[in-house]
Amino acid sequence: MAPEFSKNPPFEAPALGEPYLLTPGPLTTAYSVKQAMLKDWGSWDADFRAMTADLRRRLLDLIGDEKGAYDCVPMQGSGSFCVEAMLGSFVPKDGKVLVLANGAYGLRAAQTMDYLGRAHTLIDKGDYLPPRGDEVAAALDADPAITHVIAIHCETSSGILNPLAEISDAVHSRGRKLLVDSMSAFGAVPLEVSRIPYEAMVSSANKCIEGVPGFGFVIARKTALEAAKGNSHSLSLDVHAQWTTMEKTGQWRFTPPTHVVAAFIEALKMHEAEGGVAARGARYTRNRDVMVAGMKELGFETLLSDHWLSPIIVTFFCPADPNFVFSKFYELMKEKGFIIYPGKLTVVDSFRVGCIGRMDEHVMRRVVEAAGLSLAEMGVTSAAPPSAALDERSKLAA
Amino acid sequence: MAPEFSKNPPFEAPALGEPYLLTPGPLTTAYSVKQAMLKDWGSWDADFRAMTADLRRRLLDLIGDEKGAYDCVPMQGSGSFCVEAMLGSFVPKDGKVLVLANGAYGLRAAQTMDYLGRAHTLIDKGDYLPPRGDEVAAALDADPAITHVIAIHCETSSGILNPLAEISDAVHSRGRKLLVDSMSAFGAVPLEVSRIPYEAMVSSANKCIEGVPGFGFVIARKTALEAAKGNSHSLSLDVHAQWTTMEKTGQWRFTPPTHVVAAFIEALKMHEAEGGVAARGARYTRNRDVMVAGMKELGFETLLSDHWLSPIIVTFFCPADPNFVFSKFYELMKEKGFIIYPGKLTVVDSFRVGCIGRMDEHVMRRVVEAAGLSLAEMGVTSAAPPSAALDERSKLAA
Ligand SMILES: Cc1ncc(COP(=O)(O)O)c(C=O)c1O
Ligand SMILES: Cc1ncc(COP(=O)(O)O)c(C=O)c1O
Repeated sequence: MAPEFSKNPPFEAPALGEPYLLTPGPLTTAYSVKQAMLKDWGSWDADFRAMTADLRRRLLDLIGDEKGAYDCVPMQGSGSFCVEAMLGSFVPKDGKVLVLANGAYGLRAAQTMDYLGRAHTLIDKGDYLPPRGDEVAAALDADPAITHVIAIHCETSSGILNPLAEISDAVHSRGRKLLVDSMSAFGAVPLEVSRIPYEAMVSSANKCIEGVPGFGFVIARKTALEAAKGNSHSLSLDVHAQWTTMEKTGQWRFTPPTHVVAAFIEALKMHEAEGGVAARGARYTRNRDVMVAGMKELGFETLLSDHWLSPIIVTFFCPADPNFVFSKFYELMKEKGFIIYPGKLTVVDSFRVGCIGRMDEHVMRRVVEAAGLSLAEMGVTSAAPPSAALDERSKLAA
Repeated sequence: MAPEFSKNPPFEAPALGEPYLLTPGPLTTAYSVKQAMLKDWGSWDADFRAMTADLRRRLLDLIGDEKGAYDCVPMQGSGSFCVEAMLGSFVPKDGKVLVLANGAYGLRAAQTMDYLGRAHTLIDKGDYLPPRGDEVAAALDADPAITHVIAIHCETSSGILNPLAEISDAVHSRGRKLLVDSMSAFGAVPLEVSRIPYEAMVSSANKCIEGVPGFGFVIARKTALEAAKGNSHSLSLDVHAQWTTMEKTGQWRFTPPTHVVAAFIEALKMHEAEGGVAARGARYTRNRDVMVAGMKELGFETLLSDHWLSPIIVTFFCPADPNFVFSKFYELMKEKGFIIYPGKLTVVDSFRVGCIGRMDEHVMRRVVEAAGLSLAEMGVTSAAPPSAALDERSKLAA
């Protein structure tokens, strides 16, 4: 994790007075991405239909689908809408889902299944412990009724990168179908269908592709899209209906967020120009490494051992020092130009710092500097966490 | 309908090469509305929470709710998502809905009820004939199981302004609850709760408030919001859950379309500065009157008699002249800077011209000019419709 300097010039700063968003989306986007929204489009017009086609093609280019077995269906709403659309559309009414949870987003998938009223079972690993391949295998062997497994790629609530490959192997060797919530990872962490032959996955515009929020997308096997007819519990969230309309007319079924789509296409072009998934992932990894190394020098500790850290967002324990108050720390960091994120652990206090968005390691060095200054202003002399936090941490070995 | 000139200077034109959108949303928005999107916001941050509160307050200011009995709940997704959220959240699982349809959006509400699997019955008046108060009264008297009626305010597929007041009277005098899809009318056609005491209504960002697309909103009685707990078939579309989270935390439950929200607040400020619902409606009415008068001079005929025309969008019959081809007309109009909209009538060919968006009567005069030129270029000598169209029209007297 030795910080090295990148050869790229520092990324442009946000406009004067505007903080960097060290959050897991909405995040800091390039100015040119936002500028792409300075125009109005008719959603029925051929120009916009061409934009939709371009968007779908560019997203499919990221998954290494050499056989052309997959298709991409953008969907209005936030990421959670897409997760619900995926579950409602690809799990037949008589299907059964194994939900793998180790944080808020896994639990939200389970809650979605409750709303749907379709059969499901849960492996709940608590705040962050990863669901492992052998556990999944055992659960599938024990319950032949399970048809689908939903896994969270990066569980953003702790920042853990879940072991998707071993989960995929367990699922596919048992003839079941894998659904992936890759909301916060897609575009920066490889998700190649040759390695993880999922049935469907979802992500959204305002994460690692660095667009602005307003829609998400489903990437699914064409056979799954065809089979999804009649499954959905919701008109708006019916992926099959959205797909067939788009195939037939080139249009979204209902009014698309035209400006957000235009911004996303600009973001996709920048993603390609940077060097695709590998380069985007490398930049975020350096962001993380530089930031984590600096924070550790200040005495902060990460929840997760290095092996499990994602390049997306990192959870730090709040210092034990009684002078540390998160809301104060948040304001001091914001004054210095950085918006950080509260933690989601239930057992100990924590906060999160995102590594994604239009920023590089130079920015991350300034984040560390700002954290050091903020601690000093609060009169916090040590950023070391309470011992309960370190006990918590020891539950997860490398 | 004698065209007079407004005292306002012409509205700014779209950027060079960018056509006016004579469509029912997305529509042509002010440049300042789009410029409001040139910034990134953290959705958890206090600044954005204040924006959400401002947006809700400003929308409530439009409904004349002197008793403070209503609240506003914005919701991610397109307008159809909001209609579905309203039906799923306010109609209990054992409720029954009377759907009043006279076009695509009424039928879509019925289709949504099919997805929900909740009891409903339909009055289908075909392509445009309005559902009348006495019909609604008779249907309610005949079926005491009906708990809710959903009406479309302006049925955008023909452009008719449905007789909401008489429908409301029929519904409320019989102790039933009214749900209103005011997607394309809200903000330009009065919808005061003192006159139409609806249970809930929905509209979206990209219609008469002149924002960009990406979310919609529900305005509902607080008692209805409270009673909605547990009704929703969908996690994402649960209005009660969205409302309680917003009340408690000031945040949207899931990632909001931050940029679209910022644009909408700018649009709401411009709406207020223009003079609110009355002034917005007056401008659109002049847009319509100038445009319809000019088109009639060219020989075009409207589907609806003047009494039923909305100030939102107008359906014209396609000329009988065999040289008239809509796709060609569309392209010729687009070349001249105007995007028009195809018709949705099932019986005769038609097209639509929208009156809403950031434009005034000066623009509408140029629309008429462009239509005249386009006819000439196509070699159409008369814009008169076929006699079948006039037969159709005679079905609906003033
Ligand atoms: C892994 C994961 N799933 C789902 C979501 C929900 O997305 P949204 O907030 O856009 O609904 C998020 C949001 O950060 C996420 O990180
Ligand atoms: C009356 C009415 N209802 C519903 C809708 C659907 O809205 P959306 O296309 O945003 O889903 C529209 C769209 O124009 C409409 O005019």
